[in-house]
Amino acid sequence: MTTDFNLTKSMFHLPEGVIYLDGNSLGPLPKAAREKVSAMMTQEWGDMLITGWNKAGWMDQPTHVGNRIAKLIGAEENHVVMGDTLSIKVYQALASALDLRPDRKIILSDSGNFPSDLYMAQGLIDSLNQGHELRVVAPEDVEKHITQDVAVTLITEVDYRSGRRHDMAKLTAKAHDMGALAIWDLAHSAGAVDVDLSAANADFAVGCTYKYLNGGPGAPAFIYVAPRHAELVRPALSGWLGHRAPFAFDLDYAPGHGIERMRVGTPPVIALASLEAALDVWDMVDMADVRETSIALCNQFITGIEAACPMLTLASPRDATRRGSQVSFRFEHGYAAMQACIAHGVIGDFRAPDIMRFGFTPLFIDMDDVNLAIERVARIMRDRVWSAPEFNMRAAVT
Amino acid sequence: MTTDFNLTKSMFHLPEGVIYLDGNSLGPLPKAAREKVSAMMTQEWGDMLITGWNKAGWMDQPTHVGNRIAKLIGAEENHVVMGDTLSIKVYQALASALDLRPDRKIILSDSGNFPSDLYMAQGLIDSLNQGHELRVVAPEDVEKHITQDVAVTLITEVDYRSGRRHDMAKLTAKAHDMGALAIWDLAHSAGAVDVDLSAANADFAVGCTYKYLNGGPGAPAFIYVAPRHAELVRPALSGWLGHRAPFAFDLDYAPGHGIERMRVGTPPVIALASLEAALDVWDMVDMADVRETSIALCNQFITGIEAACPMLTLASPRDATRRGSQVSFRFEHGYAAMQACIAHGVIGDFRAPDIMRFGFTPLFIDMDDVNLAIERVARIMRDRVWSAPEFNMRAAVT
Repeated sequence: MTTDFNLTKSMFHLPEGVIYLDGNSLGPLPKAAREKVSAMMTQEWGDMLITGWNKAGWMDQPTHVGNRIAKLIGAEENHVVMGDTLSIKVYQALASALDLRPDRKIILSDSGNFPSDLYMAQGLIDSLNQGHELRVVAPEDVEKHITQDVAVTLITEVDYRSGRRHDMAKLTAKAHDMGALAIWDLAHSAGAVDVDLSAANADFAVGCTYKYLNGGPGAPAFIYVAPRHAELVRPALSGWLGHRAPFAFDLDYAPGHGIERMRVGTPPVIALASLEAALDVWDMVDMADVRETSIALCNQFITGIEAACPMLTLASPRDATRRGSQVSFRFEHGYAAMQACIAHGVIGDFRAPDIMRFGFTPLFIDMDDVNLAIERVARIMRDRVWSAPEFNMRAAVT
Repeated sequence: MTTDFNLTKSMFHLPEGVIYLDGNSLGPLPKAAREKVSAMMTQEWGDMLITGWNKAGWMDQPTHVGNRIAKLIGAEENHVVMGDTLSIKVYQALASALDLRPDRKIILSDSGNFPSDLYMAQGLIDSLNQGHELRVVAPEDVEKHITQDVAVTLITEVDYRSGRRHDMAKLTAKAHDMGALAIWDLAHSAGAVDVDLSAANADFAVGCTYKYLNGGPGAPAFIYVAPRHAELVRPALSGWLGHRAPFAFDLDYAPGHGIERMRVGTPPVIALASLEAALDVWDMVDMADVRETSIALCNQFITGIEAACPMLTLASPRDATRRGSQVSFRFEHGYAAMQACIAHGVIGDFRAPDIMRFGFTPLFIDMDDVNLAIERVARIMRDRVWSAPEFNMRAAVT
């Protein structure tokens, strides 16, 4: 192991007494982020004013930061670009894919996908009004439903509730065998597991940066387009910063080169400054070490909780190779139980109807944290009388 | 006049010796913004972690901030929401409008519109593939081209190059007479002129917040949907935060109530904190005072420059009622001349092929600044020998 996780842990602001097992929803604050944003605001926005677009490199930031993300997900250089939100990036990838398969009408997804991906697909289908169908199957049935009428698969690699991990390479190969394209949502993969988009031959990938990548609440999303499609795709969201010559102010759109055409509007410069500070931590990390350590942490948590809390049922795959970097348990009174955990300094989250979700991110969670979390959760589960769940729809964000 | 513009000026970080006449492209840094963002990052993101979504009110920020913007543009409460970029908001408004006029195929715009609006329309039309047409006419011909086959007008109120201001109420009335809908782009209006969406009976409006509103580079955009349409529009970009119950994680989309359905993905919390600091300045301002002062500043600049610089030709309307809050001049060597102005501390910008553009924002520009700017520009124009223009496409951003 070459990564010094004690060092990376010291780079985060972690409130005293809290074991933060929700980095899969919102990563914690990197200590350097505040200073980086502050410096950007004063020295760039404040002092350079409009000239910051060139002098401070704001205009190139979406591709510059995209290249930093690319290294973490096995993407080729200059094939990832930042901007907007994950939902928007899903729309862009999906519209592009359907455009590349004009004779096919089926979008295949699964019921474990994050709902916003399905919603964006539904909105696109309604807008197109060209007879497309969103086919949603059980996660375990995806492979057999990849048939010759499927235009594109829209799959989230790691299930946001259970942590179940799809086999990206296998499903992509099947999609290609059937003449379909494959879009991968990496929301719970980027920074969590060893993703290799290039090796898996993925066509498109999208993801957010506020979970395992620690970019901050509402940090910008990313999109990847495989080199073989990059000069072919027609952007549905054809904004001026995806134009070949944005500052020529032509009245007609002409797509920019490759991944540049997936840019839409003005880049979110302040948010990107925060994300850059978060990526500085990732520069010190070997993803193989992250994966190995994550598996050890998750396994330890499963073993400990199962031994101490018989009322909790594992909802995640037991096989670490089929799991992301989170562990979920089912419990009838899961909402109340999670509230109690949070009150006792173990922050995970709850997903309806009965999922208690705990994320493990080696960058700032170590084995001592896991053992202490087990101890606290075990005490809560043992000491409390569990009555009817009180359910708060807005308890947390994925 | 009730507004204290000396006070508002003191609230901005303005580099020594610089007269900043480019707030129409990127507003300057409000002094309080850095501290506000810093506090948000440490006390909310850092200390509250995931619980910030509820405890710090992040989840409600897009509508909360939308209501602050609404006051500046004559919009009804709870009918403006923040998010994404202006280009995305154009797409949402346009897709919604076309959906409300299914029997019509014409989108009417003008050649003075900002190109990204036209690009987004072109992308939408291509995606829909249902025979829609983007009809782009000269700005002065818009009114007569609003005919009974027009589905929607997509017009930027204030021209980004010339500052020419359309008559919003008149064109909207004509659109309604012809059975069409009216979308107004307020990029160069919000915070610049006295906009009254409600009185003008506008159907949709969109805008950005990094120009006259001073939200920061890449600050989030806003969208307005008139109350009469708010519960009818079908969102094309149907993201989870526009869902009626985002945290129920249903597999099927159901639009949220009213303007909430125009939300798409996770809100840009850090950028919104900066924007909130900028809006604190606007709380101290009467828009009628802003308009009156802006006209006085622009008139003074026109008079002074025309007297001193005969080689510059006014490209903006002379009639202040037909002008936004900027003044543009044509000059063959405009690019080089603007570079010289910037080097001498008068920051305006250049728009191809020959436009020198100067924005006047009473919040931080006063009559002394205008007189000093005239003096400096006059000296530059008089002293330099103007040769062939060297043109840099990426010189600046609108």
